[in-house]
Amino acid sequence: MAGLSEDERGALLALAEELAEAARAETLAHFRSPALDAETKETDHFDPVTVADRAAEARMREILAARRPQDAILGEEMGRKEGSSGLTWVLDPIDGTRGYLSGTPTWGVLIALSDATGPLLGIIDQPYIGERFVGGLGTARVTGPQGTAALRTRSPRGLDEAILFTTFPEVGTAEEGAAFRRVADKARLTRYGMDCYAYALVAAGQIDLVIEAGLNAYDIQAPIAVIEAAGGIVTDWEGGPVHEGGRAVAAANREIHAEALKLLAG
Amino acid sequence: MAGLSEDERGALLALAEELAEAARAETLAHFRSPALDAETKETDHFDPVTVADRAAEARMREILAARRPQDAILGEEMGRKEGSSGLTWVLDPIDGTRGYLSGTPTWGVLIALSDATGPLLGIIDQPYIGERFVGGLGTARVTGPQGTAALRTRSPRGLDEAILFTTFPEVGTAEEGAAFRRVADKARLTRYGMDCYAYALVAAGQIDLVIEAGLNAYDIQAPIAVIEAAGGIVTDWEGGPVHEGGRAVAAANREIHAEALKLLAG
Repeated sequence: MAGLSEDERGALLALAEELAEAARAETLAHFRSPALDAETKETDHFDPVTVADRAAEARMREILAARRPQDAILGEEMGRKEGSSGLTWVLDPIDGTRGYLSGTPTWGVLIALSDATGPLLGIIDQPYIGERFVGGLGTARVTGPQGTAALRTRSPRGLDEAILFTTFPEVGTAEEGAAFRRVADKARLTRYGMDCYAYALVAAGQIDLVIEAGLNAYDIQAPIAVIEAAGGIVTDWEGGPVHEGGRAVAAANREIHAEALKLLAG
Repeated sequence: MAGLSEDERGALLALAEELAEAARAETLAHFRSPALDAETKETDHFDPVTVADRAAEARMREILAARRPQDAILGEEMGRKEGSSGLTWVLDPIDGTRGYLSGTPTWGVLIALSDATGPLLGIIDQPYIGERFVGGLGTARVTGPQGTAALRTRSPRGLDEAILFTTFPEVGTAEEGAAFRRVADKARLTRYGMDCYAYALVAAGQIDLVIEAGLNAYDIQAPIAVIEAAGGIVTDWEGGPVHEGGRAVAAANREIHAEALKLLAG
């Protein structure tokens, strides 16, 4: 999106943060709510995650309708709205719904802005922790409990010195799980269960790789933008684009990315 | 410890929180430090976790030496110091060192105060999130991003409606892993990788079970005190005391505890 002026970039970044603020309030309003837990138990039809998910996406769509009616929207909960600007807002109001349901702090709100080539801007927001990772349109920063810092991925190191994350130990199909374990078996350390927080850790220079399967566009677009802005690389398992979803390798640098791709291929 | 007066209980609770504050500062000082990361890479001998672990335990021991020299101390990093009061402070300055090393927010500081019968008081502190779970000596509360709330474990529900956590998918030995999976296969949801945070979620009424193996006394004493104060139950896999370490089942209530024990036994 070379056509965007400095002012337009600033305005889009500010709007993305405004969406994140709105989603933060809506998702936290239902998080760890005992009343909702009780209601779930009684009716067995009621899902607090769904309520929070929908409320947060509805709020973000309201803001976009008022401020950028010309843009398309792709949201996890409410599907696709067409636009005329060539830009699409890609929204996942709660990434890590199982974590949210369990009360863990590391679920997040994912917001991306993309054109036909892929995401230009992404936010990985952590409502409970009060931490926000922003990347794209000239920005790569985290703001959280320790203040604001630039995001920068790790320098290259061998896989035997690398830290690898994924969300579910089974990863995907049996074949995908086996491919994952070829990488995990050579990594220094493998960890599970962090959802979108794992991608934020790649951007923040804390870990080297995230490998996952079965992703949707709204799961991966914000991580792509944040990690690429921080100097990393995110592709599918064959090295191609992954912003439409599928199987993703998020890497701190080209060297570890190449090493992972080779092992995933078998 | 029926012999403690109201004032003594208050003083011990305040001292435990003072230890947690001190450990919070020391552990955060080294968390996500890029300088330490660089140093690790160059020398290959330097471990930022060890530095933070030792600094935090040393600071807690200094405070105890000044304020409660009569008490024993058992610490992960610096072993055992004998005492004369019958009370022991049990310290794990960083529970979840692999999570700490990876930059995840859910590692914690564990502090317990025990007598010969087991822990009387426990703190699960979350330095990065700014959240503290305290239980025992008449207290059961969490203070964090959403303010202060009472801790209360979940009401009974069947295992098919229950949420189960453990840290590592392999759990322990092959036999221990198989026993764990007998429970996991019947649970509604199984999640991994939260370290001590999982125990805090039992106390906070968010999840039903944590099952782990290979624990040390300093890993489990604070969780026992916090969960019991919130109405839950923590034993070994056979239903006996687990405050000396080993294989633990932390449960929200007696019903789900009994169901888990039965499946673990085979």
